[in-house]
Amino acid sequence: MAASRCLAGDGPADALRGVALDRLDDCRSAGADPELATVLVSDDPADRTFMDRKHDLCAEAGIDTRRIDLPPDATAERVYRTVADLGADPSVTALFVQVPLPEHVDELEVRRRIPPEKDVDCFHPANVGRLVAGDPRVRPVTSRAVERLLDAHDVRIAGRDAVVVGRGTAIGVPLAQLCCRRDATVTVCHSRTRDLGAKTRAADLLVTAAGTPGLIDGSMVSGGVVVVDVSVNRVSGGVVGDVDAASVDEKAAARTPVPGGVGPLTMACLLDNVVAVTADAAGVDDQSR
Amino acid sequence: MAASRCLAGDGPADALRGVALDRLDDCRSAGADPELATVLVSDDPADRTFMDRKHDLCAEAGIDTRRIDLPPDATAERVYRTVADLGADPSVTALFVQVPLPEHVDELEVRRRIPPEKDVDCFHPANVGRLVAGDPRVRPVTSRAVERLLDAHDVRIAGRDAVVVGRGTAIGVPLAQLCCRRDATVTVCHSRTRDLGAKTRAADLLVTAAGTPGLIDGSMVSGGVVVVDVSVNRVSGGVVGDVDAASVDEKAAARTPVPGGVGPLTMACLLDNVVAVTADAAGVDDQSR
Repeated sequence: MAASRCLAGDGPADALRGVALDRLDDCRSAGADPELATVLVSDDPADRTFMDRKHDLCAEAGIDTRRIDLPPDATAERVYRTVADLGADPSVTALFVQVPLPEHVDELEVRRRIPPEKDVDCFHPANVGRLVAGDPRVRPVTSRAVERLLDAHDVRIAGRDAVVVGRGTAIGVPLAQLCCRRDATVTVCHSRTRDLGAKTRAADLLVTAAGTPGLIDGSMVSGGVVVVDVSVNRVSGGVVGDVDAASVDEKAAARTPVPGGVGPLTMACLLDNVVAVTADAAGVDDQSR
Repeated sequence: MAASRCLAGDGPADALRGVALDRLDDCRSAGADPELATVLVSDDPADRTFMDRKHDLCAEAGIDTRRIDLPPDATAERVYRTVADLGADPSVTALFVQVPLPEHVDELEVRRRIPPEKDVDCFHPANVGRLVAGDPRVRPVTSRAVERLLDAHDVRIAGRDAVVVGRGTAIGVPLAQLCCRRDATVTVCHSRTRDLGAKTRAADLLVTAAGTPGLIDGSMVSGGVVVVDVSVNRVSGGVVGDVDAASVDEKAAARTPVPGGVGPLTMACLLDNVVAVTADAAGVDDQSR
């Protein structure tokens, strides 16, 4: 039991943070000072804690931030106006909006109000289009994090049978695109999928972003699979992913832990994207990669 | 043998053409006259024949067209300039560029030069992004055609295990998006897929757009599958799809013929998109659907 290799994210996250901080210096030498603005529409303590971490991350790097938390019953118009105002503010160089949004807020209307050049999570439709067309201005942080984590641990993606659980525009779709771009055969599963276990057992690379604790147990995976658990579900006593670690580890070749797997790299990718959009807007050459 | 149901495209294509012609009348009443410009970079007789059909289709509807065929060794700059010039011409309301382009021409550079509001095949990155985000300005003609064909024959998409063979940006990716949006579980296969037959045998909806005659034979499908053959491959004696019809029909519940399946609907969708972008640009209300 517990024979599976641990695909830890902290080391690769530190490495990427170092790259981002070098470029941050280049930015400042060129007179460009990043400022990240965030919008959260929720009063869930877990959502607020995740947002705290994003601001802490920037504070540690000496990056100014502005944070607007709106109550879940804020009017849609107020949310749209908040995003548009931050987007129009010249001192804000990077803008992040937490999804999912409450039902009464149209996510697409929000996406459109993020200026493409300040978009740090590939939310604006024009940026999504460039990503699909193979010429991204900015990559979504979660799929960037998964790619870097697998590459850092020398886990091959090409030629694998990948299964992605989750089809959301923000996470599932970019993860599927990543697998396809890197030459995996990818199956996208979701709430309407019949016999999820049959699909996940056919995977030799399983990426789960469903947000459901215990969704994937040992009976749902085949021997030798690599499991990437993107979900961070807050439960009493801490956070867990979608994977039942004990039973999956009896079969998996490798698995990302939660916490300490994709999460830290997601944060580092966000920092890197904040610096990158600021540098791009200021015309600072990319000397660090 | 040959027990499979024929999912013919001619009837649904006629119906859609009728809708498009009604809206064309609305356009003209409002003083908006469509003109389709096409760009082909090839001297392959088959490519030229397909392009002929697009112009014939418009001519039958009384729509002006402009056609620019460039030799396959045309410089990339010449291709970009041609597309940009047509895009800038105020009398051109709709612009279509045939892909694939020769290797030395950057497809993304071409896509960017199609004005989004004249784009009839969802080529511009901003339009791709809107499609993925769930708010399409225009849908790619091939995936529109497949959706209409299946709907016209009351073939359910939701809940199926769909396999799409082909991952190109123009056809494979939009087909996969269609299946996912309509609640199928979708697997995208391509040239790097291991054991394609194992994947296609797991499908109860198989969509092939590989462009390889005979790629899918009876040994590669399971009983009861619905097969959608998007490819139109020119061979001596006519056109064929990717499917070996005789052996597949012994197992499939239904199959689209080639010719006469997806093809006619693709043409009707192109006509409808030409009228739609012209009407949208002129602010003509959509009264016909």
